[in-house]
Amino acid sequence: MKDVVVLGGSSGEHLAVRIAELLGSELGEIEVKQFPDGETYIRILADVSGKRVVYVNSLQRGPNSLIVETLYTLDALKDLGAREVYAVIPYMAYARQDERFNPGEAVSIFSLAKLFRALSIDGIYTVDMHLHRITDPTKLFGAKFHNLTGVRELGKYVKSNYSLDNAVVIGPDEEAEQWAKIMAEELGGLEYSVLEKKRISAEEVVIEARGIGVSGKNVVLVDDIISTGGTVVESVKALRKLGAREIIVACVHPLLVGRAYPRLLRLGLKDLIGTDTVLSPISKVSVAPAIVEALRKTLA
Amino acid sequence: MKDVVVLGGSSGEHLAVRIAELLGSELGEIEVKQFPDGETYIRILADVSGKRVVYVNSLQRGPNSLIVETLYTLDALKDLGAREVYAVIPYMAYARQDERFNPGEAVSIFSLAKLFRALSIDGIYTVDMHLHRITDPTKLFGAKFHNLTGVRELGKYVKSNYSLDNAVVIGPDEEAEQWAKIMAEELGGLEYSVLEKKRISAEEVVIEARGIGVSGKNVVLVDDIISTGGTVVESVKALRKLGAREIIVACVHPLLVGRAYPRLLRLGLKDLIGTDTVLSPISKVSVAPAIVEALRKTLA
Amino acid sequence: MKDVVVLGGSSGEHLAVRIAELLGSELGEIEVKQFPDGETYIRILADVSGKRVVYVNSLQRGPNSLIVETLYTLDALKDLGAREVYAVIPYMAYARQDERFNPGEAVSIFSLAKLFRALSIDGIYTVDMHLHRITDPTKLFGAKFHNLTGVRELGKYVKSNYSLDNAVVIGPDEEAEQWAKIMAEELGGLEYSVLEKKRISAEEVVIEARGIGVSGKNVVLVDDIISTGGTVVESVKALRKLGAREIIVACVHPLLVGRAYPRLLRLGLKDLIGTDTVLSPISKVSVAPAIVEALRKTLA
Amino acid sequence: MKDVVVLGGSSGEHLAVRIAELLGSELGEIEVKQFPDGETYIRILADVSGKRVVYVNSLQRGPNSLIVETLYTLDALKDLGAREVYAVIPYMAYARQDERFNPGEAVSIFSLAKLFRALSIDGIYTVDMHLHRITDPTKLFGAKFHNLTGVRELGKYVKSNYSLDNAVVIGPDEEAEQWAKIMAEELGGLEYSVLEKKRISAEEVVIEARGIGVSGKNVVLVDDIISTGGTVVESVKALRKLGAREIIVACVHPLLVGRAYPRLLRLGLKDLIGTDTVLSPISKVSVAPAIVEALRKTLA
Repeated sequence: MKDVVVLGGSSGEHLAVRIAELLGSELGEIEVKQFPDGETYIRILADVSGKRVVYVNSLQRGPNSLIVETLYTLDALKDLGAREVYAVIPYMAYARQDERFNPGEAVSIFSLAKLFRALSIDGIYTVDMHLHRITDPTKLFGAKFHNLTGVRELGKYVKSNYSLDNAVVIGPDEEAEQWAKIMAEELGGLEYSVLEKKRISAEEVVIEARGIGVSGKNVVLVDDIISTGGTVVESVKALRKLGAREIIVACVHPLLVGRAYPRLLRLGLKDLIGTDTVLSPISKVSVAPAIVEALRKTLA
Repeated sequence: MKDVVVLGGSSGEHLAVRIAELLGSELGEIEVKQFPDGETYIRILADVSGKRVVYVNSLQRGPNSLIVETLYTLDALKDLGAREVYAVIPYMAYARQDERFNPGEAVSIFSLAKLFRALSIDGIYTVDMHLHRITDPTKLFGAKFHNLTGVRELGKYVKSNYSLDNAVVIGPDEEAEQWAKIMAEELGGLEYSVLEKKRISAEEVVIEARGIGVSGKNVVLVDDIISTGGTVVESVKALRKLGAREIIVACVHPLLVGRAYPRLLRLGLKDLIGTDTVLSPISKVSVAPAIVEALRKTLA
Repeated sequence: MKDVVVLGGSSGEHLAVRIAELLGSELGEIEVKQFPDGETYIRILADVSGKRVVYVNSLQRGPNSLIVETLYTLDALKDLGAREVYAVIPYMAYARQDERFNPGEAVSIFSLAKLFRALSIDGIYTVDMHLHRITDPTKLFGAKFHNLTGVRELGKYVKSNYSLDNAVVIGPDEEAEQWAKIMAEELGGLEYSVLEKKRISAEEVVIEARGIGVSGKNVVLVDDIISTGGTVVESVKALRKLGAREIIVACVHPLLVGRAYPRLLRLGLKDLIGTDTVLSPISKVSVAPAIVEALRKTLA
Repeated sequence: MKDVVVLGGSSGEHLAVRIAELLGSELGEIEVKQFPDGETYIRILADVSGKRVVYVNSLQRGPNSLIVETLYTLDALKDLGAREVYAVIPYMAYARQDERFNPGEAVSIFSLAKLFRALSIDGIYTVDMHLHRITDPTKLFGAKFHNLTGVRELGKYVKSNYSLDNAVVIGPDEEAEQWAKIMAEELGGLEYSVLEKKRISAEEVVIEARGIGVSGKNVVLVDDIISTGGTVVESVKALRKLGAREIIVACVHPLLVGRAYPRLLRLGLKDLIGTDTVLSPISKVSVAPAIVEALRKTLA
């Protein structure tokens, strides 16, 4: 694609390489380093004047320094004369702090959106971000907002590596129904549902799969994010109790905080799959194709 | 002072305590913690609705996380109904990245100012910030901008601890003349000057004190910031060569990066003094009085 | 295996899970946390008294804290009455600091070995450690020392995922010949060699494959470790100049320091493979089978 | 002092400078840096062959990396031919983990001592280390062990800065009686005691000063260490309740973890003083004289 330069920040360069390749566009470079006093130095080595720029950076583990780097870089790109600037933020930090759950709390995602808004960029692409309480992200972030999904890419990987006889797709909770639905479609129209907690007495809660039998079935359990892994551990135990056979766990954002990874390995899963929105030992699938498909529509 | 709440962020609380005390105002609290995924959680515990709020945070060593904390908190204060919000940033990070020294560089202080501008706060108070290339900081930061000095407080400390017979005040370079001048005034009208490099042949450079004799004199060497300590080490060696006797080094911002502190201790100085804009083992002087003096004018 | 407990430290638990499973042994747990002052708290939750214990911890990126954790844990296991204690250190830090290259340098691997020696453990298992200048590691570390290889596991992965028609195996330098040889065997007896630098004039150096043609060939490039990625980048460029076709890069220890991963992605490799001695986005292969094979001989 | 070289590690260099000066000995240098993979590089730049070496390093906040640095350096000094090697560890980490409080815990200080023991050094000097459960530290650490006190230096500072009319010395708990005693002596024989918790009913506990009246008195509160500051906050509140007037808080090791410093500032103390065993904003007093006094006896 002509007049397009793809650039990666310090946690987005791996995706920038793949996106540039799929777009058939120039791949540029940015120098990012820390001064001894902890300030970040940023220098855009590519010539961006008059160009359309796709800047990729993921706001993953320890996001604050990446946020500053991202905002400074986007501002510099405009300042250096880029004609259009598109931010690809595969993982958007602070998305879960989208309400004042207790008095006095900062509603961080709104503040972060306001900072992006100050930069007048031309578009934002992110992947499977929680938008429950955000009805108009384009207005909030001040740039055409694209919330893409990585679940189709996860589905392609599952389909090409496993037989899906006798399989169903399950989301660990109500909210995950949207991802279960997409995964089920991608896997050729499998049945799908979500897990539900049911209180059966004052002391006892059971977990059930809503309106679907999992006994004797192979299960693809799908969620948007694995952080500490607690939800997955609980869900897998429930599915086993319900008689499920082999279980594959797939998530878009494998944050895998603390001991999450070994905890999940202890579950004896058939496979454990994440994407490269956040780099991890389970980042077996790239979201680059989903991002490029969306970028093509804008840049065509 | 009524209707005023003073709050400190995670690197400003020590100054918030002192400012509240001097102002005679309420001192509130903010809960700041890190989630396991590195996101920052902020909760303002004081009731700020309808109040005038003074928020203090220093953007010192490793400033990126502090920048995000500061911006989120300022935004939250407005959102929680504070009538007026004043940011006290004793040390402003990125002030030295105020020009594109090489093609493609981010001019970080302009980007940072733009982020502050997005928040519509009512005033910013900082201490001895480089403003060479910034002619209108109020416009740039989008809030009435006060660039205070900590040098008078350093001067008071020197005066009350040392005899100043036979003393002169020296700045390590041209730029430091402004601080040497203030220090000299504060010390009762001492002579002052700055060091200059003079090339005397192709190979040789000598350092001289411009238009002033230091031989046999005691010297108060004053600068705005000590980062790695290189400038001070070089200046002290030059002063000794020129025959200076006892040397006191005073700076506003004791960043003391890496091995700066032991390097300075090796110089055999009479004293080594900094303020509490940045906490360090040499933070013997508080800038709180200077900040409170300026705040009083606004809040009166 | 009876009377055997497998335990993982904070960077070894993923391998402990796999090792316990393959050994058919009990998998225990250790609680490891940091106090606010940065001290490490360690509590062995499994009952190890009278048992044979296999403790797994990798001394990867930022190894110092992991070294302290490992030494304290091994000492505690003995103290708690474990009958035999085996340390599995998939990646041994400081192995490259095995000589006084400049006067006054600490020869860190000798010091580290001395610390292990103080603990009187019963065996150490590590993977592809540099032992050029260490002739008797068992004496040095004070425990029966097993230097295993992860290259066979890498080979199995390559063989089962790629056709190897027209392929040769190359090591990036002299030292890597040992790994090229094992890989070549594992791939069914392929030809193998190493790259060599040849000075052809005062200014010019060329890189050649010693005694082997790579023009038109597919290449499996194999090394023990990828740190900054510089060696691989240089080698791949040389192989391309020599006419190589598709290139697969395989390494045992994917340290991938700094920007190594995106740098390698830019090379357009057919695949990029590492093991789980160090967790990384390319840790597609586990060394657990190699470790278990060796453990079985000891524990049988 | 002849044939003696004083060297500082990365958190001991400030004390090494002061110790060398007071001893009148050579001050050498060590290069310490981190490789990109997090390993520590150590090079002793001074010529230590045949010399007696005093190596100073404090095992303060984030001690693990400092422990590895210290052990490697001590081993290197021996290896480089130093005739005698003395380790000055102003703050000894892990001293509070000196018992198995819960089953399975590592008793870290015993493990750390064993690591020191492996190095065959000639003496260890530390300051106000907890030795309750360690009866023979010389045997445990395998080197003549000197547990010095920094309380006398604190006392000298208090005496020369404050009038002590109407003052008493208080320790916050039973254990602190030893420090209260020394402080009281140093202040010319003041009365001293400790605070005690007394249960007066099922719900209510009161804190009293054992056998001493504090009403209307000025108090010097002294402890060995301030970590989170909780003990000091509680003690100061109790003293105020008991009618104490002005309170000075003095401690040897100002660890000041997290928000300890601003918490203490909120107490409205007359002064808050620590030593330089751990560098902090309250490190107003050096323990160098106490260390030098002990070293002189050995090195004379």
